[in-house]
Amino acid sequence: MPEIRQSIATREWVIIATERARRPHEFCNEASELTEQRPARKADCPFCPGNEEAATMEMLRWPAEGPWSLRALLNKYPALDKEGKRVRCFDGIHRCMTGVGRHEVIVESPVHNTCLALLDSAAVTQTLVACQARGQAFARDPRIEHIVYFENHGLSAGTSVEHPHAQLLGLPLVPYDVRNRIEEAGRYFDDTGNCVYCDIWQAESAEGTRMIASNELFVAFVPYAALSPFHTWIVPRMHRPSFLSAEPDELVALGQILRDVLHRIYAGLHDPDYNFIIRSAPLQRSERDYLHWYLSIIPRVNETAGFEMGSGMFINTGLPEESALFLRSIDH
Amino acid sequence: MPEIRQSIATREWVIIATERARRPHEFCNEASELTEQRPARKADCPFCPGNEEAATMEMLRWPAEGPWSLRALLNKYPALDKEGKRVRCFDGIHRCMTGVGRHEVIVESPVHNTCLALLDSAAVTQTLVACQARGQAFARDPRIEHIVYFENHGLSAGTSVEHPHAQLLGLPLVPYDVRNRIEEAGRYFDDTGNCVYCDIWQAESAEGTRMIASNELFVAFVPYAALSPFHTWIVPRMHRPSFLSAEPDELVALGQILRDVLHRIYAGLHDPDYNFIIRSAPLQRSERDYLHWYLSIIPRVNETAGFEMGSGMFINTGLPEESALFLRSIDH
Repeated sequence: MPEIRQSIATREWVIIATERARRPHEFCNEASELTEQRPARKADCPFCPGNEEAATMEMLRWPAEGPWSLRALLNKYPALDKEGKRVRCFDGIHRCMTGVGRHEVIVESPVHNTCLALLDSAAVTQTLVACQARGQAFARDPRIEHIVYFENHGLSAGTSVEHPHAQLLGLPLVPYDVRNRIEEAGRYFDDTGNCVYCDIWQAESAEGTRMIASNELFVAFVPYAALSPFHTWIVPRMHRPSFLSAEPDELVALGQILRDVLHRIYAGLHDPDYNFIIRSAPLQRSERDYLHWYLSIIPRVNETAGFEMGSGMFINTGLPEESALFLRSIDH
Repeated sequence: MPEIRQSIATREWVIIATERARRPHEFCNEASELTEQRPARKADCPFCPGNEEAATMEMLRWPAEGPWSLRALLNKYPALDKEGKRVRCFDGIHRCMTGVGRHEVIVESPVHNTCLALLDSAAVTQTLVACQARGQAFARDPRIEHIVYFENHGLSAGTSVEHPHAQLLGLPLVPYDVRNRIEEAGRYFDDTGNCVYCDIWQAESAEGTRMIASNELFVAFVPYAALSPFHTWIVPRMHRPSFLSAEPDELVALGQILRDVLHRIYAGLHDPDYNFIIRSAPLQRSERDYLHWYLSIIPRVNETAGFEMGSGMFINTGLPEESALFLRSIDH
């Protein structure tokens, strides 16, 4: 019989389709070319070395002299406008705000045919350090209330440029979903005196059946109520609401475990498209006791359909325990 | 400058990407074959006439004698089990429920290469009447708390069988998203004494810039805070919480306007993949004053990516007013 699981963090229910479940290897992306099979440089790629002049304004370049290994750029087609005032308007059904905010891109490597899974840990850490540095710059903009950090890897994950890059979007508001997560975490804290994310990583770590990897500072696991096959959380053991206050040694440890998990996914599932997101507290929130930042990876191995849109629920066609066992067992 | 709009029904924010917006015709699906270009019958299609014996249990056949025009079947790979007790379990991070419920398919026509856009209004109404009849059967099952009615048209909309069919899923719980919508509608009612959905369709109808079509009993429009290009709501003028209590004349009028809107989408955008969902009140709810059923159509003309997953917000790259003008102007 299928099982319906509820996340104690978000209260979202997911149908674990035990009867319809596919074995982990059946999600393997056999058809498309691997990232590493592409050319190492493309003349028309806006992020490849040699095309720096054609790109948008550079916000960061490491190292500052000589060949660069990472750059941060303004997004050429920003979702929000860097300039302008935040103004709200209310008039009947018209409730809106000027689209001001920040939208930048982190070019993770000068090499076109690579990705975080194929880079070394130090390069992955460098991307995280750059995300944090640009996030800190966003945080000084008084119009920004919340930052979303994410990567789109592959066409079905919504990328338009192959060259490996992450993105940051600074929003002039706290999204409805984020507000709900804060409220749910607050209720859990009221009921138990604990941070729900601390309770989750400790329980997952103790139970072990959904664990993928861990190090001194992070644990990586497929959550009990995972929304899709191989959906992975990487949670810091240290309780902190915001990614912006993560310590340098934490970013080193995160670079190591993120690279490890992404390489397991790359090797085990043949370079599937994926998204990763960093969920961090809104900038103006000081709920130190019950918000906890973490990183979430969503391999795009199945489609969402009308049921998901109509209910907000997901049908996970992979067993979380099998997904975790598969990724844990990858010899890479 | 982009505009950030908020739905007064759901409080969800959407970025209307005015600068990155594409013109409506740029969303046209040029590549794939049209539904009508496929064969009219396929030997291996489980829903084609001649293969009835191989199918799962039949729940409905119209007409009962002679060649059928519509059938309702158990889903061959149900997401939930028809048999068994609803049992909850609570143990630390493990919060789950047995996966019991109902999952059926409505085969909308004996013809393989058709879809609701290509059928006549009477056939579309027949599908809606069948959805309601099977929903009423689900509602008699005391384990069922909420029903999701939906259609997945095309691969990227998550369908696995080409033959035109709708689906019903009866859930043993009220999903988190649905619960939030009820709460928001309740707050709006507290503040104004009105049903928010009644206020929305009346304002859209009076303003006119986002209207697509209307008849005596329904209005079809692209909502002010549409989540994606051509996202359409079809709302009954009559205030009623549940689709299950819609009157026969309403289903006739809905068949007419749904067929009209879907044909505009088919003709104007070259048969794009889409989902439609019917949002109806949970079965045990009697909030007669502020819940209002409606139908939502989501053409799958763009991908969701890391930003949407990380924030729950959407970036709409089509202006709602332009989407509506385009669909309103289709000469079909």
